[in-house]
Order: sequence, then C-alpha cells, then structure tokens
Amino acid sequence: MMTLAEIRDFLDHHFPQLKASGRFTVEELRPLGARRRATYHEDQIRPGGTISGPTMMTLADVALYVTVVAAIGPVALAVTTNLNINFLRRPGPRDLLAECRLLKLGKRLAVGEVLILSDGEDEPVAHVTGTYSIPPG
Amino acid sequence: MMTLAEIRDFLDHHFPQLKASGRFTVEELRPLGARRRATYHEDQIRPGGTISGPTMMTLADVALYVTVVAAIGPVALAVTTNLNINFLRRPGPRDLLAECRLLKLGKRLAVGEVLILSDGEDEPVAHVTGTYSIPPG
Amino acid sequence: MMTLAEIRDFLDHHFPQLKASGRFTVEELRPLGARRRATYHEDQIRPGGTISGPTMMTLADVALYVTVVAAIGPVALAVTTNLNINFLRRPGPRDLLAECRLLKLGKRLAVGEVLILSDGEDEPVAHVTGTYSIPPG
Amino acid sequence: MMTLAEIRDFLDHHFPQLKASGRFTVEELRPLGARRRATYHEDQIRPGGTISGPTMMTLADVALYVTVVAAIGPVALAVTTNLNINFLRRPGPRDLLAECRLLKLGKRLAVGEVLILSDGEDEPVAHVTGTYSIPPG
Repeated sequence: MMTLAEIRDFLDHHFPQLKASGRFTVEELRPLGARRRATYHEDQIRPGGTISGPTMMTLADVALYVTVVAAIGPVALAVTTNLNINFLRRPGPRDLLAECRLLKLGKRLAVGEVLILSDGEDEPVAHVTGTYSIPPG
Repeated sequence: MMTLAEIRDFLDHHFPQLKASGRFTVEELRPLGARRRATYHEDQIRPGGTISGPTMMTLADVALYVTVVAAIGPVALAVTTNLNINFLRRPGPRDLLAECRLLKLGKRLAVGEVLILSDGEDEPVAHVTGTYSIPPG
Repeated sequence: MMTLAEIRDFLDHHFPQLKASGRFTVEELRPLGARRRATYHEDQIRPGGTISGPTMMTLADVALYVTVVAAIGPVALAVTTNLNINFLRRPGPRDLLAECRLLKLGKRLAVGEVLILSDGEDEPVAHVTGTYSIPPG
Repeated sequence: MMTLAEIRDFLDHHFPQLKASGRFTVEELRPLGARRRATYHEDQIRPGGTISGPTMMTLADVALYVTVVAAIGPVALAVTTNLNINFLRRPGPRDLLAECRLLKLGKRLAVGEVLILSDGEDEPVAHVTGTYSIPPG
C-alpha cells in the first residue's frame, strides 16, 4: 500500500490542475479507505447558496480513485466506469469531507462508496458509489 | 417555454462561474431537450490524455438543469437529487457535446438522460441520467 | 414508528405475493434501519450457481420500502423512484441478509442504502441505494 | 451474432425458472439491440395497482443480458455488475415492453440502456442502464 506522502506526490504529478486549484487535500489514508477535504471557496456556490454538485462529484471521484491507486500501486490509468450520486441535503458554506471505503477490490474492477459531509455536521450531504476499471497488470 | 436567449441570460445571472470559465454554451433548446457544448481546453485533461470525468458530469448536469428550467420557467431552486454516469470511451482532445432529453417532467420530479459525444464522432463517450426536484410552485 | 409486528402485517396485507413466496422476512426494525432475510431456494439460481440479481434487487427494494414505511406510517403509496445496485461478489447457496439504513428522510423524498450479505460471511455481495417518493400527507 | 431461435434456446436452457414462469419473451433481436416482453399477470401487482419494480428490473436485466450474449456468443457467465433504474410513471395493467440497445461493447465490459414501455403507450414507464462484465475469452 502507498503512503499518504506517496499518494499526494502521485496526485500532484498526474493531476496538476487539482494541485493548481489548491482546494483538495487527501487527509487520511487507511487500508481500503481515505478521507479527502475540499476547502470551501465561494466559486463553488450555486443558486440557493449551496455548493455545486460537480464540486461534490469531483471530491468523491478523486477520493475513490486515490483509495484504489493506494491499494493497487501507482497505476495512473485506472479509470472510472460508473459513478452514482444521491444529493441528500444542501451543504452550508464550509469545507466538505469525503469519507470513502472500497466495497470490492477485484483484479478487474474496484467498487467503493463515499459519504460527503459538511465539516462539523453529522448528517451526510451526499452519498456516492463508484466503479473503477483496473488495467491488466 | 423559455427561449435560448432567455436561458443563456438565466445561466449567466445564476451561475457566474460557468460564464467566467468561458467553456460551456447552450447551443440548442428543443421542447424537453437541449444540446450543450464544452469547449476543449487542456486544463480538463487527466492521465492518459482524456478529458476528466468531472468535466463530463458538469456538462451533463447543467444540460439537464437547463432543459428542466426552460420547461418550467426560471426557477433557480430546482436541485439535482440523483445523477448516474457511465463512462463509455475515452474522449479525444476535442469539444464535447451533450445531447439531452427529459424522460419525465412531473410536478415534483423531472428525469432526463444525456448522451455525451466527442464533436465529430458517432460513438458516445458517456451516458448520464439525472433527477431534479422541482420546488412547490 | 411502527413495530415489527405492525410492519409484517402491513406487508402481508399489501404484498400478498411476497407472503405467498414464503421467502422474505423482516428480521429487525431499528430507527431508520432494518434487516431483511431472503431464504435460500434453488429457484433463485442463475448460470454459474449464483443467486439471481433480481432476487437481490427485490430483497433490497422491499427492505428500504419497509424502513421508510415504518418511519412515516403505513402509507402504501410511497413509490421507488430510483434504485442503483452494484453487484460485488457471487453469493453462495445460502440465505441473503439485507442491512439497510436511511440516509435521508425528508418530506418528499427518502434515500437509503443497503448492504447485501451472504449469511455467515463478512464481505458484501451487493450494495444498493434507493430513493422513495413520499405522497403529500 | 446469434439468431432469435438460438438466444431463446440459450435462455430456456440456462434460466429454466424464467421459462417456467411463462411470462417473458424475447420478441426481436437486432445488432446490439433487442425487444423483450413481460406478459401482464396480476401476481406482479403492488399497492396502487401498478406493476412491481422488481418485475421491471428483471425484464430489463435479462433484456440487456440477452443482447450482450447475442453479440458475444453463448457465454453464460457474463454477469451484471451495475444496474440503475429510474421509475418514471406507474404502468397500467398491461404487458410491458423493454426496448434495449448497447451503448458500448468492449472486451471486458458492455454497457446498455433500456426503455420500458406499457404496451400501446408512448411514454416510458422506466429507464434502465446496466453494465455487464465479460469473462476473459
């Protein structure tokens, strides 16, 4: 399994735009799980004062991707094949946390889920499942 | 039904960041359908040279949102409740087109689907379904 | 909240075919959660010796429905609007357990998730999310 | 590509319970598409007089499976990895038709969509997407 420092280097190298945005951080890496933070910024706001859905989808997708890559090694070519998101509550103007865990890590496919929370609150703002295709070794 | 000019004004007003990005355009509005373009830009690229999933999710989500709003009137508070995306092929370095149509326009929920295509190619790069909750009138 | 006995009576009354099948039991009811069992029967088998996907979808859908109805009262007309299932592992020839919990219980929509397990095993065989539309009171 | 007669024999052989139910028929097979019928029967009814969700999920899942198998040859071990269904309208007491087409037929994954219609009506009652994992040749 990759370390937190290794996974951060991997992301900075392969996703320079994420690094440039300065808003996303992998905070914690566990076996088959991770926590990722999206720093609040008013650019993400949509009508009604809530954070945009695409911000949450990006947060969850990369959280799952990171967890898969940390488990299988630095394979930049793993790709998302399916992502399903249920938006549950309007998040307030604060950071978002993505708590993710893999439900399956197979040879060809990995499947995981993510709960997205507003920092400091208990009720999830969104739930995501994602599937990743793992290239032949 | 709102006109194409009206829907563009509505988006510019309610989603200033989309306007600022200069990359997304509603090209066509039909009864219960729309076409939206994402101009190619290298910032969207992820490892393997393909356009990022979040770019496609944003493109589809707003295409559906616009189609719902055009049908029900300028209600900025319609919200996405579910979005499901299947990534089918790696798009090349060119514009993406989202062709969307509503499958249901009810009083409380609207459901639609989107095919995302690389401009100039026939095979879809992604398929999206989305559900939108419509606030009580 | 309805009791386990009340929810079983409700299901027997409104879903006589489920009762007739003799295969599904609500085992436990918690605030915003439930466990439901599908007794193993060789009719559910599909090629490869695994239990059919539709058996798992039925198990999860009714588990979520029951949890929503237990929370809001005996409203037979709540309806599923979306169901998403990821099949993770082939279940063996044994009972299936659905562990479900609601992620949101709103006035108009309820959203929940279900882990489906083979009785006696730790790794989930499927993960389901479902959305239910609640009729105006 | 397999013929309609071949695909019917394949299903009868591998899914004897479907045959025993006497309710499902593959009506038409096209390159990367198929139409499948579920004969109306009052057993499928749920509260509110509508056909049950699991009946629709079964109809769509097997319609997609059949289309994949017809395209790749009689490989009984292709398996569903993801199925997402949006229920759009309550179907009346009549046959259901599933019109399906594949959006992608890759070496490892096939993805398709299904529109489910009440026989004789224009508006779809449900929309389904499904993903199938194809075993190594």
